[in-house]
Amino acid sequence: MKLTILGCHSASPHEHKNPTAQLFDIKGHRFLIDCGEGTQVQLRKAKVSFVHIKHIFISHLHGDHFYGLPGLVSSFRLLGREAPLHIYGPKGIKEALTLLLKLANSSTNFPLHFHEIESKESACIFEDDGVVVHTIPLKHRVYTNGFLFAEKEGLRRINSEAAHAAGIDKSQFRLLQSGQDVEVDGVLVKNSSVTQNPHPPKKYAYCSDTAYLPAIISIIRDADWLYHESTFLQQHESLANQTQHSTAEQAATIARDANVGRLILGHYSSRYKNLDLFAQEAKTIFPNVLLASDGAVIS
Amino acid sequence: MKLTILGCHSASPHEHKNPTAQLFDIKGHRFLIDCGEGTQVQLRKAKVSFVHIKHIFISHLHGDHFYGLPGLVSSFRLLGREAPLHIYGPKGIKEALTLLLKLANSSTNFPLHFHEIESKESACIFEDDGVVVHTIPLKHRVYTNGFLFAEKEGLRRINSEAAHAAGIDKSQFRLLQSGQDVEVDGVLVKNSSVTQNPHPPKKYAYCSDTAYLPAIISIIRDADWLYHESTFLQQHESLANQTQHSTAEQAATIARDANVGRLILGHYSSRYKNLDLFAQEAKTIFPNVLLASDGAVIS
Repeated sequence: MKLTILGCHSASPHEHKNPTAQLFDIKGHRFLIDCGEGTQVQLRKAKVSFVHIKHIFISHLHGDHFYGLPGLVSSFRLLGREAPLHIYGPKGIKEALTLLLKLANSSTNFPLHFHEIESKESACIFEDDGVVVHTIPLKHRVYTNGFLFAEKEGLRRINSEAAHAAGIDKSQFRLLQSGQDVEVDGVLVKNSSVTQNPHPPKKYAYCSDTAYLPAIISIIRDADWLYHESTFLQQHESLANQTQHSTAEQAATIARDANVGRLILGHYSSRYKNLDLFAQEAKTIFPNVLLASDGAVIS
Repeated sequence: MKLTILGCHSASPHEHKNPTAQLFDIKGHRFLIDCGEGTQVQLRKAKVSFVHIKHIFISHLHGDHFYGLPGLVSSFRLLGREAPLHIYGPKGIKEALTLLLKLANSSTNFPLHFHEIESKESACIFEDDGVVVHTIPLKHRVYTNGFLFAEKEGLRRINSEAAHAAGIDKSQFRLLQSGQDVEVDGVLVKNSSVTQNPHPPKKYAYCSDTAYLPAIISIIRDADWLYHESTFLQQHESLANQTQHSTAEQAATIARDANVGRLILGHYSSRYKNLDLFAQEAKTIFPNVLLASDGAVIS
């Protein structure tokens, strides 16, 4: 897993303060998560080839998470993209992009697939051999989902030395990897004697934007990484409640109660000059805290 | 007149290559002309207070001239703007912005007035005591207008010394400024003996995007400044024809034939590394050429 923070600030873009967008690498995928204005420039700064982005996940249709998408899709077209593009986001996203293309008297020269989300329950929106993505219903001023990206459990890992000593031929390794016992010259070799458990599947939970919402804990439990918005510090808790955002303390409470590995904070309000205060506040509740910053790569 | 180039590159934004937007100061107005993605960051870099922008003119609904507008309008809202905002642009611009606001479950807390343009003829779209704005119908892949910003003729300028010598009281200056003769102790003083002609009204013609279109010459004739797109050099004339853009030579031909004061070039294709070639090519036709560059201020 590798996470590239393209933008991690709330509200309107400033020089050096980009609105939300992240690039998440997992099992050969490069998933784009949210796409605030200026995301295509941030992708270029990060030297990301546009053609490798095949799936874009949009949490909600506020501008600071979405207004870079029409331009990115236009750029894909200008660059002669042929590969299909899948866009996952709230109902309405198709109407918006389709209208903007129509007004530009334009159409994409690549297949553009919309996967509109309406469910209020966590739902599977993507699945292949290696990865599964579920929505995390959040609580904000407009219909919003976070996303839980999870590796599927891999194959059992063969202990080559033990397998060799047991006289197992390589042609039987697929059976071992899938958990089966094998026979060697009429003798059964127990799978567990020559294999180890697969690496535990990794999980990344992305939660922005949201008010404090303990209901997400059962969905994100034991995630390796949790990105949770922290627009405010606790001193402005009433503002957080009013705008349906979270404080750093609330984000850390979710991280602790969901037993995640690491908490990544972001979506800071521009009112705060010293972002270290977010980490300080969160660490009183949960120790493993990282502050997102534009351009940072986490792996 | 003062022109701030916020962005002058074609197609998709890159770091240090912003799509089209200009801020034009004339007679106390700060007009925003086009609004490609990233314009609000460019405005901040130029230290422009958002509240002074009351009129936005959009030439056409291609992304590189328009996709910064939804974010800018959102920012106006977030910043608590109360002043009315007027947006002039092709039919459809209201539907697009209204849909984006609706999907964000949002509304502006300031009056938002759309002035949709449909005419194929040059039309007056703004007028007050000091300035008048006409459309310049252009030829592009989608319905497009340039804009002609013109000062109205000012007051006659009083020669203070001559007026004093003729014994004219200051209370009569308004009459002189409006061109009337005045009486002093029963003696008529001819206006022309104590005043000079007003400063000639200034004009700025903005033409982007467009194929070579001599039909605009009669509209922009004698403009002090002409911004004319030059996406290509003459060596790629066939590409210019195909995409309905202009070459530097074509832009210069329009400037010469319209007898403008100064030609400002921009909207360069990213295929060219050496932009000086645009000036060189244009100067073979028309001498007073300036290359637009992001952040440049022309006055």
